[in-house]
Amino acid sequence: MAEARRILGLDPSLVACGWGVIDVRGNKASHVAHGVIRPPKKEPLASRLDFLFKAIIDVIEKHQPMEAGVEEAFMKDNAMSALKLGQARAACILASTSQGLGVGEYAARLVKKSVVGTGAADKAQVAHMMNILLPGAKVKAGDAADALAIALTHAHHKRL
Amino acid sequence: MAEARRILGLDPSLVACGWGVIDVRGNKASHVAHGVIRPPKKEPLASRLDFLFKAIIDVIEKHQPMEAGVEEAFMKDNAMSALKLGQARAACILASTSQGLGVGEYAARLVKKSVVGTGAADKAQVAHMMNILLPGAKVKAGDAADALAIALTHAHHKRL
Repeated sequence: MAEARRILGLDPSLVACGWGVIDVRGNKASHVAHGVIRPPKKEPLASRLDFLFKAIIDVIEKHQPMEAGVEEAFMKDNAMSALKLGQARAACILASTSQGLGVGEYAARLVKKSVVGTGAADKAQVAHMMNILLPGAKVKAGDAADALAIALTHAHHKRL
Repeated sequence: MAEARRILGLDPSLVACGWGVIDVRGNKASHVAHGVIRPPKKEPLASRLDFLFKAIIDVIEKHQPMEAGVEEAFMKDNAMSALKLGQARAACILASTSQGLGVGEYAARLVKKSVVGTGAADKAQVAHMMNILLPGAKVKAGDAADALAIALTHAHHKRL
């Protein structure tokens, strides 16, 4: 008899994330366990994502699946961009929370206002200010300059 | 003199994710390091998210920040739903990949067609089939039934 393959199915949602574990031997599948993870609604996003992340790891450790299936999202245009960004944000947030870091979130306008003095500043202005405020940064306009600006915004907001 | 607070700033993107590390002492901030993480474009989503996730952990381990700031996304309606879903999907995918699981993705229609025989099946039909195909599941219509169906779809697709 073939060895059983244990598979985890995940139905991603921040409100009610379904999970199910099955065993499969050849053509036969059997139920192992299932449940719904409901991250606390009133917590900040990072806490809810971290709750979900850890709850899934608990399920994996308890049931020891070998593979996972995740429902594919189907969208287009704007919504698809938002979806991708959401995933990237989660990777950032989770990598931080999994290492014990507190995470703050800041709107782009707030970051610009905080470091340049106006929420309408462009990327070049942000990079310029980073090189003034953070001597030695030698950062060019673009993503890493924005990241430094975010760090600085976090520093200001958490200090106040 | 106050102890320095080391802060990580993150600008989430799956294409080019900026990061910056600064030290803050009282009113003074100093640059520590910055960079851009570019997950390989041709890899599947889970690999790219995992790449991003691990690259951020590497940055954290190397530079030892105590806190992190992440740019807040600003959207509305549909796009905001997509963003949230993206984040939830990432938490699922990352929790899986971080435990060494391979991850497959399946469209909702494919899951329904795979377990009910038609891509237009409703949630009640999916739950009904799960209780037939997975004796003992005793699952009600809703998220966990879909999760079991996804696990089953994964089983079928990876076997073929």
